[in-house]
Amino acid sequence: MSAPDYGQAFALWRADAGTDWDAYTHHAFVEGLRDGSLPQACYLQYLRQDYVFLIHFARAWALAAAKAGTLDELAAVSATVHALVHVEMPLHVQTCAAHGIDRATLEATPEATGNLAYTRYVLEAGYSGDFLDLMAALAPCVLGYGEIGARLAGNTGPYADWCATYGGIEYQTLCRDVGALIDGALLRRLGPGWTDLPRAEELQARFATATQLEIGFWDMAQNPAIE
Amino acid sequence: MSAPDYGQAFALWRADAGTDWDAYTHHAFVEGLRDGSLPQACYLQYLRQDYVFLIHFARAWALAAAKAGTLDELAAVSATVHALVHVEMPLHVQTCAAHGIDRATLEATPEATGNLAYTRYVLEAGYSGDFLDLMAALAPCVLGYGEIGARLAGNTGPYADWCATYGGIEYQTLCRDVGALIDGALLRRLGPGWTDLPRAEELQARFATATQLEIGFWDMAQNPAIE
Amino acid sequence: MSAPDYGQAFALWRADAGTDWDAYTHHAFVEGLRDGSLPQACYLQYLRQDYVFLIHFARAWALAAAKAGTLDELAAVSATVHALVHVEMPLHVQTCAAHGIDRATLEATPEATGNLAYTRYVLEAGYSGDFLDLMAALAPCVLGYGEIGARLAGNTGPYADWCATYGGIEYQTLCRDVGALIDGALLRRLGPGWTDLPRAEELQARFATATQLEIGFWDMAQNPAIE
Amino acid sequence: MSAPDYGQAFALWRADAGTDWDAYTHHAFVEGLRDGSLPQACYLQYLRQDYVFLIHFARAWALAAAKAGTLDELAAVSATVHALVHVEMPLHVQTCAAHGIDRATLEATPEATGNLAYTRYVLEAGYSGDFLDLMAALAPCVLGYGEIGARLAGNTGPYADWCATYGGIEYQTLCRDVGALIDGALLRRLGPGWTDLPRAEELQARFATATQLEIGFWDMAQNPAIE
Repeated sequence: MSAPDYGQAFALWRADAGTDWDAYTHHAFVEGLRDGSLPQACYLQYLRQDYVFLIHFARAWALAAAKAGTLDELAAVSATVHALVHVEMPLHVQTCAAHGIDRATLEATPEATGNLAYTRYVLEAGYSGDFLDLMAALAPCVLGYGEIGARLAGNTGPYADWCATYGGIEYQTLCRDVGALIDGALLRRLGPGWTDLPRAEELQARFATATQLEIGFWDMAQNPAIE
Repeated sequence: MSAPDYGQAFALWRADAGTDWDAYTHHAFVEGLRDGSLPQACYLQYLRQDYVFLIHFARAWALAAAKAGTLDELAAVSATVHALVHVEMPLHVQTCAAHGIDRATLEATPEATGNLAYTRYVLEAGYSGDFLDLMAALAPCVLGYGEIGARLAGNTGPYADWCATYGGIEYQTLCRDVGALIDGALLRRLGPGWTDLPRAEELQARFATATQLEIGFWDMAQNPAIE
Repeated sequence: MSAPDYGQAFALWRADAGTDWDAYTHHAFVEGLRDGSLPQACYLQYLRQDYVFLIHFARAWALAAAKAGTLDELAAVSATVHALVHVEMPLHVQTCAAHGIDRATLEATPEATGNLAYTRYVLEAGYSGDFLDLMAALAPCVLGYGEIGARLAGNTGPYADWCATYGGIEYQTLCRDVGALIDGALLRRLGPGWTDLPRAEELQARFATATQLEIGFWDMAQNPAIE
Repeated sequence: MSAPDYGQAFALWRADAGTDWDAYTHHAFVEGLRDGSLPQACYLQYLRQDYVFLIHFARAWALAAAKAGTLDELAAVSATVHALVHVEMPLHVQTCAAHGIDRATLEATPEATGNLAYTRYVLEAGYSGDFLDLMAALAPCVLGYGEIGARLAGNTGPYADWCATYGGIEYQTLCRDVGALIDGALLRRLGPGWTDLPRAEELQARFATATQLEIGFWDMAQNPAIE
């Protein structure tokens, strides 16, 4: 299956991430979601860690709003923050509740190192770098879930809901919007020839590192006992 | 008229800011809004500068979201960012249009130094300090407008709309929410005796400096020719 | 007199800043230093405000060290921080003492708004942007003093010491080093064609705004009564 | 053996970190340094990763300089940055060369995840929090090496040099200075009763997490094949 069309930067960075991109988007955890073979204990570990992850991820998007260069960028990014905090988080809490994890348990989740490594890498990339560094570090999560969702859409196993969420039209639209935001931000700052600049290599490296940290996140969720 | 009840920290910081607080909330510009004597040229200068101000102010609130310590803080702050960017900014653009200032003109507004000084002070306070520094630096604008609005509510002159907006129940509720957010954030980090800590003096100084910068903002709007 | 050779970016940004650059480097305050006509009260006001300025300026250079992209950049920048804090600050304290301003008085200096506006602009540029934004915002102070010093070197009036410091070989070498640091940083990130990128306009705007804030700093020092 | 006296905060945080502190300071890697049983491959892996670590660690100290609250704090912290970049780094490069690792090899070191997790955690703590958050996150490395060094001082095995460096009077003095810096910073901001504030728990958590990440760093160095 070909990659979904989330814009120019994504296509480039995805191709460059090579086998790591496949290791992330076809991770055993993902295949377990697809064919239903994922043990529920792993899924619950994932849900709990993802709760912690989403808080830091929303903080990173908020940092992007602080670093936006135009009102349009600010509007696009702050809409994403709002969706994460006021739609996705409540939904996540609800999903967890449906699996018997109440909010107090969620909040008491000890942050796994693979989780911490990922979110702090993204946030620090944003603080030390600029808006583009943040976008490149945020992209693998947002757009990788989109690609996985597009592949798993229509799935009917025990994880049908997860597949429907990320494969659904709403999330796919978000991915195209984020892809367009990134392409626009690159064009606005670096011009149409940005792919040939040394800066492009730095951004590619951000995307590649975040992709590796996604693999680490699945590893952690896949093997709850290890952490 | 007594101060509106926006919580403990506001009452303390406001009292400490002393005559500067009065100079801000009873500035000639404000009195001109109240009795209708403010020349329209000053009001238009204010509207244009306020457009630039609001962008940086929203960025500062977004930074607060990035620095939030709990999911509740994150939710409260990101709701404010959203309201600023997706409600207040469009409203502001509309108000400007009604006064004959189109969006292109707004976007071409050269940032006055008094405007730049204020917003960069707030943002830097947030970046170099923590969530509390940011709250203390953001408070004079949010809550001072609330206090002015409460006093000017029901005004019928040429600036009746401005008075109705900030004196209205929606904005007054926002002020009480922000006051509660600040009090909660202080309590959560510094405990009930926070007012006696040296940290309290730093925060008070943040509030006092931002109050002085509000005076400078009115001065700048009052005298468009100077800048 | 032609501009000193502090590298490519400086030549470009300086030319672009146009009349503002002249207004800064030939400000009445500077001419007063040159011909000795500057009232001592202005010079003392300048010395006191410059003490506050240098602290924030050193903090901004430290931020640049935090944002450095290579070990060489880190080494160059941290050497500057060290020189500012451990050489220039003690020298400044000593100069002030020679003019009858003791350290307690220095530390009690209320920060003028023109001072605050400048330093917070630079720091915020660095926090919200990246290493290059910081370099562009730091350049007018470092290199402008170099250009003024080169012009006033050999001066024999009451301000001969000031002129000797900034016109001296040590400071001129620092300026060439900083110019080379900036050119290297631009090349490393944006490649040899960086001047044609939209990013170049952003950086130019940083330099231009900082130049205007330098003018404001001289204005403030020239008219101590105003603040 | 009792803990070295590096001040009040260290004593408190160290006690609170409990068994993790022992797991860090008595890690198999450390014991291998002590009794000489550490395979050289592990030591070389450590040296290479430590090179990458030191760059980010110096950046974090530079960030602390940007966030310093007084000129004394700024002076103390910038002296540490200078020592790290202009003394410790060249020494490290020299040590590596003596073990056959040239500078090009050092610079090509792929950053291990356990390394990345640690440094980004510290930097992000500093960016999102304030000076105190940074101090609490930096302390386990600086002071833990001091404690290990004090215990291993006088060691005569193959790792005698390492033990002499960290057990030596120069490094021990640095540790006492950093301890005093931290105690002073706490007192200046939070007053003498700071240990009873909720803020103390946040700082303790920073220290505890950084301690766990130190264990992860030794694990990574101990098992080069895993990464």
